[in-house]
Amino acid sequence: MSAKAKNAAIKSRPDFPVAQARRYLEPGPIVLVSSHHEGRDNIMTMGWHMVMEFTPSLVGCVIAPSSHSHRAIRESGECVINIPTVALVDKVVGIGNTSGADIDKFEHFKLTPEPSRVVRAPRIAESHASLECRVHDASLAERYGFFILEVVRACAAKAPQNPETLHYQGDGRFMVAGKVISRKGMFQPHML
Amino acid sequence: MSAKAKNAAIKSRPDFPVAQARRYLEPGPIVLVSSHHEGRDNIMTMGWHMVMEFTPSLVGCVIAPSSHSHRAIRESGECVINIPTVALVDKVVGIGNTSGADIDKFEHFKLTPEPSRVVRAPRIAESHASLECRVHDASLAERYGFFILEVVRACAAKAPQNPETLHYQGDGRFMVAGKVISRKGMFQPHML
Repeated sequence: MSAKAKNAAIKSRPDFPVAQARRYLEPGPIVLVSSHHEGRDNIMTMGWHMVMEFTPSLVGCVIAPSSHSHRAIRESGECVINIPTVALVDKVVGIGNTSGADIDKFEHFKLTPEPSRVVRAPRIAESHASLECRVHDASLAERYGFFILEVVRACAAKAPQNPETLHYQGDGRFMVAGKVISRKGMFQPHML
Repeated sequence: MSAKAKNAAIKSRPDFPVAQARRYLEPGPIVLVSSHHEGRDNIMTMGWHMVMEFTPSLVGCVIAPSSHSHRAIRESGECVINIPTVALVDKVVGIGNTSGADIDKFEHFKLTPEPSRVVRAPRIAESHASLECRVHDASLAERYGFFILEVVRACAAKAPQNPETLHYQGDGRFMVAGKVISRKGMFQPHML
């Protein structure tokens, strides 16, 4: 792909309030976590994450202590959670089945590292949304590989409004979510 | 619905190995958490959860300290995570918008409490899968409402093989996941 065509494929992604990170994370999609440490960028595929609080905007996640990204995120104190759509499924799988110790994943998987606004880890320009994060609490990192991250900046493409996302089941299988149903009228206002 | 018709609607749900709980939880569906405390059953709707380990089978989740279920689960040390399909959406929303302090949710929402195998909290018979859990680590329960649960017994309906599940986005909207795509051939065997 030419640089021009590649740039055309990358959408503008305006910022949105970090308290709304749940919109992208709570449905439980597989995500790509980008990091920067000792002069190198890296990416990992992550399925074990959850929203923990709106304000501050907290996200819990497990990153195996044996992974290249664990040390990078722990020592740099930063990362970006990127939400891919179904179009990126083969890159998501490829990234999950290789190690940043062996290859430059941005180069190998032809993804574009885009400068973040407030952290040094790059955003993945081809992803639908990117959440810049700082490590908020690593007290259970040793025992469970568990980190609590704070989302400090967030951006998302405006279209499509309901992108299809990937939800990993194990054994190489992903559920695809896309259709949206609303029951807003049944909610108490303070529960929305 | 007559008792007979109701029983016919409840499927047999054979046990499966607890290490495979990810199959149901990692895609990130909204779940119903049932508990039993001081002689009463209760149910809450939960969207903030994640897989943390295969063996032991650990699940992290946030249960607001202000909720009726928080105290029940903390004091009894047990609960059941039930995975509903899209057919139960109105009950899921109703349960999330009411408190067990005011009503008996099993009775109000016409759900069937089914005795669990190893915990006292009941399983919800109408759900697709049920994971019986014991509290494994409550060290961050005070600070974040965060519990690490261990799945000690698990069962699931055999059909449908790929049920449609609900994935909450906030603002009363759920994504629906159902379609499954496989990339098993692209995985390194030890990564499956």
